Amino acid sequence: MLRPWKTILNLEFGTEKSVFQQIADQLIAEIIKGRLKPGMSLPGSRILAEDLGVNRKTVVLAYEQLIAEGWLEAFYKKGTFVSEKLPKQKQRRKQINEDSMSALKNFSFTAFNEGVPINIPTDMPLIVFNDGLPDVKLAPLDELARAYKRIFQQKARWRMLGYANERGEERLRTAVLLMLSMDRALNFNLNQICITRGSQMALYLTAQVLVKPGDFVAIENPGYRPAFDVFKRAGARMLPVKLDEQGIDVKELEKLCKLQSIKAVYVTPHHQFPTTRSMKADRRLELLRLSNQYGFAIVEDDYDHDYHFGSRTLQPLASYQNAHNVIYVSSLSKLIAPAVRVGYVAGPESFIDSLVALRMTIDRQGDPVMENAVAELMEEGLVNKHARRALGIYRERRAIMTRLLETHMKGLADYEVPEGGLAFWLVFKKAVNTVQLAEQLLKTGVQVISTERFSFDEQPLNALRLGYASLEAEEMERGIKLIAAACY
Amino acid sequence: MLRPWKTILNLEFGTEKSVFQQIADQLIAEIIKGRLKPGMSLPGSRILAEDLGVNRKTVVLAYEQLIAEGWLEAFYKKGTFVSEKLPKQKQRRKQINEDSMSALKNFSFTAFNEGVPINIPTDMPLIVFNDGLPDVKLAPLDELARAYKRIFQQKARWRMLGYANERGEERLRTAVLLMLSMDRALNFNLNQICITRGSQMALYLTAQVLVKPGDFVAIENPGYRPAFDVFKRAGARMLPVKLDEQGIDVKELEKLCKLQSIKAVYVTPHHQFPTTRSMKADRRLELLRLSNQYGFAIVEDDYDHDYHFGSRTLQPLASYQNAHNVIYVSSLSKLIAPAVRVGYVAGPESFIDSLVALRMTIDRQGDPVMENAVAELMEEGLVNKHARRALGIYRERRAIMTRLLETHMKGLADYEVPEGGLAFWLVFKKAVNTVQLAEQLLKTGVQVISTERFSFDEQPLNALRLGYASLEAEEMERGIKLIAAACY
Repeated sequence: MLRPWKTILNLEFGTEKSVFQQIADQLIAEIIKGRLKPGMSLPGSRILAEDLGVNRKTVVLAYEQLIAEGWLEAFYKKGTFVSEKLPKQKQRRKQINEDSMSALKNFSFTAFNEGVPINIPTDMPLIVFNDGLPDVKLAPLDELARAYKRIFQQKARWRMLGYANERGEERLRTAVLLMLSMDRALNFNLNQICITRGSQMALYLTAQVLVKPGDFVAIENPGYRPAFDVFKRAGARMLPVKLDEQGIDVKELEKLCKLQSIKAVYVTPHHQFPTTRSMKADRRLELLRLSNQYGFAIVEDDYDHDYHFGSRTLQPLASYQNAHNVIYVSSLSKLIAPAVRVGYVAGPESFIDSLVALRMTIDRQGDPVMENAVAELMEEGLVNKHARRALGIYRERRAIMTRLLETHMKGLADYEVPEGGLAFWLVFKKAVNTVQLAEQLLKTGVQVISTERFSFDEQPLNALRLGYASLEAEEMERGIKLIAAACY
Repeated sequence: MLRPWKTILNLEFGTEKSVFQQIADQLIAEIIKGRLKPGMSLPGSRILAEDLGVNRKTVVLAYEQLIAEGWLEAFYKKGTFVSEKLPKQKQRRKQINEDSMSALKNFSFTAFNEGVPINIPTDMPLIVFNDGLPDVKLAPLDELARAYKRIFQQKARWRMLGYANERGEERLRTAVLLMLSMDRALNFNLNQICITRGSQMALYLTAQVLVKPGDFVAIENPGYRPAFDVFKRAGARMLPVKLDEQGIDVKELEKLCKLQSIKAVYVTPHHQFPTTRSMKADRRLELLRLSNQYGFAIVEDDYDHDYHFGSRTLQPLASYQNAHNVIYVSSLSKLIAPAVRVGYVAGPESFIDSLVALRMTIDRQGDPVMENAVAELMEEGLVNKHARRALGIYRERRAIMTRLLETHMKGLADYEVPEGGLAFWLVFKKAVNTVQLAEQLLKTGVQVISTERFSFDEQPLNALRLGYASLEAEEMERGIKLIAAACY
C-alpha cells in the first residue's frame, strides 16, 4: 500500500513552479522510480485534492496533462490509471544529482587531447612572455563600442538578426578586400573570400576541404601547432620540413614531392612562426614552382602582416603572378583584439564555394552585428589608425627588448631583431633544457612558452620565443634579467 | 635590350603607395615575369633615379629592400644585380587579375554540396512560410544593444578582449544552467556545458566526438537535415527510423539495435522536426531503456522548448533519472534572434572535456562580449520577459492559422494544432506532388519549403511544414487561400 499522497507528493507553495506542474512532475518521478506501476489506479481528483490541500482543478489539470503526455490513461467511469503502455521500470533509489550522468554513462566517444590551450593568466602578477599576442590594453574598444551602437541603431538592423550570408557580411568582405588590395597587393572578388571565426576556423575549414584521410601534408618544423592539429584532425599524414635562415627547405620539400603525392604545404612566410624569419625571395619562387609542378596547394598563413617594422612589408605568395594554388588565410583578431574573432580565407572561387558549404554544417554563419561593426571601423579608417598607433608602441617595446637582450643575453643566445611580428626568437649557444628552464622561471615569476609546443615531435627546442607586446619596460627588464640569470 | 626604365616602371605619384614601394614591387614583377633574369645588372641608383625623375634616395631604398628580401644582390664596386639564386622563370605575359587563381588552380579538393541553405529572401514581397523561425521583428534588440553598451563600459572589459575560456564565459554558462534548472528540470554543473555558435555547432561537435567513420547512427525520418549532414560528415552510417503519432518507432529501433551496434540516436522529442509532434511518455522511457541496454548515446535536440502553448512544457529526456547517456543540445538563437548565435551542449563531464578540446581546433573560443551581453539579458529577466511577450503574439498567430486552416484546408489535409513550436504540419489526404506545388505557389507569391528536405532519401513528402511566426494575419490568409487553391 502506498503512503498517503501528502507524504509522497511534496508540494511547495509560492515558488516559481506552479503547483499543478509540481504534482505532474512528481507523479512522473514516482512512475519512473517504479513506485507507481503500469495499470495502478490513481485516486480521484477530488480525493487527491483534499489530501494535498489544493483546489480540485489543479489536480484535474495535472491529470489531463499526464494523460496527454501518455503517462496516465483515463477510462470512463473507471478512473485514472498509470498507463499500461509504459515499459516496466526497475526501482531505482539513487537521487538525481549532477553527477549521475557522468558517473553512469556507458557510451564511448573519442577523446581529444590535441589543441590544449596555452594558459594565459590575465590576473596573475606574473611577467608573461606570450606567443606574440598584441596588447589587449591597446585595443580600440571605445571605437568598437561606438560602431556596435551605430549598427544597433541603423534602420536595416532587423535584417541583420535573421539568418545571414554564410560567407560573411558583404560589407565586411568588401572592406577586407579593399584592405588586401591596398596593403597586400591581393585581388580577390567577393566570392573568393569567406569570413570565419578567427584564422583558426579558416585553417580548420581549409584542412577539411583540402585533405582526405591519408593525404600527405607538409608543414614547417618548428611551426604553428594549432595548424598541425587542424591537418592531423583532417586525417593528414604529416611531413615536417626543416627550416634555415631563408625559410622552408625547398630542396627537402622537392625530395618529398618525388617520393609521394603531397596535397598541401602549410607555411607562414611573412614572419615564420615561431622563428620570426621572413621567407626569402628565392624560396618563395621555388615554393611556387614546386606547387605548380607537383600540384600541391600552398596554405599561406599571413597571420602577422599588420605588425611589420621594416620600411616595406613583404608581399604574400598569393599576390605573385604564378600563385595558382595558394589558399590565403589571415585574421583581423590580432589587429583589433583576440576576442574579436574575425579571420578570413581567400582562394579560387570553387574552393571557397566548397568551404562555405562545409561551414554551413559547422556553425551556419558568422555574427552579422559584429561583422558590420568591424566593417564600419575599417571603412572609417579606425583600424588603420589603431594599427599605426599600436605599431609605434610595439616599435618602442621592440627597441627596449633589443637593448635588454644586447645587455643580458648576447653571450647566451643568438637572435635577430625581428623585421615584424611581436616576438623575439632566441637560440641558445649552449644546450639548455628549456623545459626545466620554464619551470624554474615560473617560480621566479616569469612565464615563457614551453618550446616542445613548437616542434612537430614535441621535443623541447634549444630556443625561446619571447612575445613582448603586452609588457612594460620595467617588466621586460625584470623578465630578461631573470631569464639570463636562470641560463647561467 | 630593355626599354627605358621610365616605360617599364610605371610610377604614380600622390597615391597611397609610396614611390619606393612602387619601384620595388614593379621590379619584382619584372623578375617574376622573367624580363629581369638572374644575374642581370641593374642601373646604378643615380641613373635610374634620373631616368624615373625621382630622388636617388628613393631608388637606394628600393634596392636595399630588394637585397634584404633576396631579389637583388649587390657586389662592391660592381653594382646591383638580379640575384643568381633565384630559380629561372618562364616568361608569362598574362595579366594578374582576379580570375587568374580560379582559372589555373591545379590542386584537388573535396566538394561539399550538403548543407545548402534554405534561401530565405528577406526583401522580396513574397509570403514566406518558413521552417518555423521566430519573428526577427520581435527580437529584443534595444535591450541587447543596451547590454552590449554596458559590457563595453565595464571595468573588466579589457580582460574580455584577450583569449577567453573555450567553454564559453562562466557568466553565461551560469545563466544558462539556472534557466535549464528552472525551466527544464536539468541539473548540470559548469563543467558539463559548453557554449557554442548556435545549436548547429553543438551538433557538429557532438557528432565529431561521438562518431567514428563507419559507426551507425539512427535518426528520425522525416527529420532535421542539418543534423543528418553533421552525422554524415562525421562518417556515420545512417539508419533512418520511421515515426508515428507517439514519436520515433522504438520497436524498429530495437530491431536495428539487435542487428548492429548503434552509436547514437538523434531525436527532437519536444516538438519533432518537421512533424511538430511531442514524443509520448512510453516512447521516452523505452528509448532510455534501449539506450541503457544497448549502450548508445541519445542526442536530444531540445530546439524549440521556449515556444510551447500547452499549460505545461514536457521535460527533456536528459532530466529523467535514468538518462545516463543523453547529450542535451539546445540554443538561445530562437529566443533572441537567429543571428545571435548562442547554442550549447550539456552532458557527462568527460564528454564535454573532449568536445571542448575539439572546439579549440575549430574556432578556439566564442565571442566573450556577446556572451556577456546575452548573460546580462538573462540575469535581468529580459530574455524571459521577451519570451513571454513573443509567446503571446505567436499564440494569436497560431489561433489565426488554426481558423484559416479550418476554413480552407480541412477537406484537403490532416493536421493537429501544434502544442508548441512555430509551425504547422499538414498531411494531404490525397496524393499531392509537393515539389510541383511549391513551384506553382512561388509563381503566385507564396514560398513554402520543399519537403524533400525533410525526408532522409530526399523524396518529396505528401505534406507541408508551414512556419507562421513571422506572418501578419493578412499574409497568412492570402497565403493559406493560395495554397488551398493550388491543391484543388
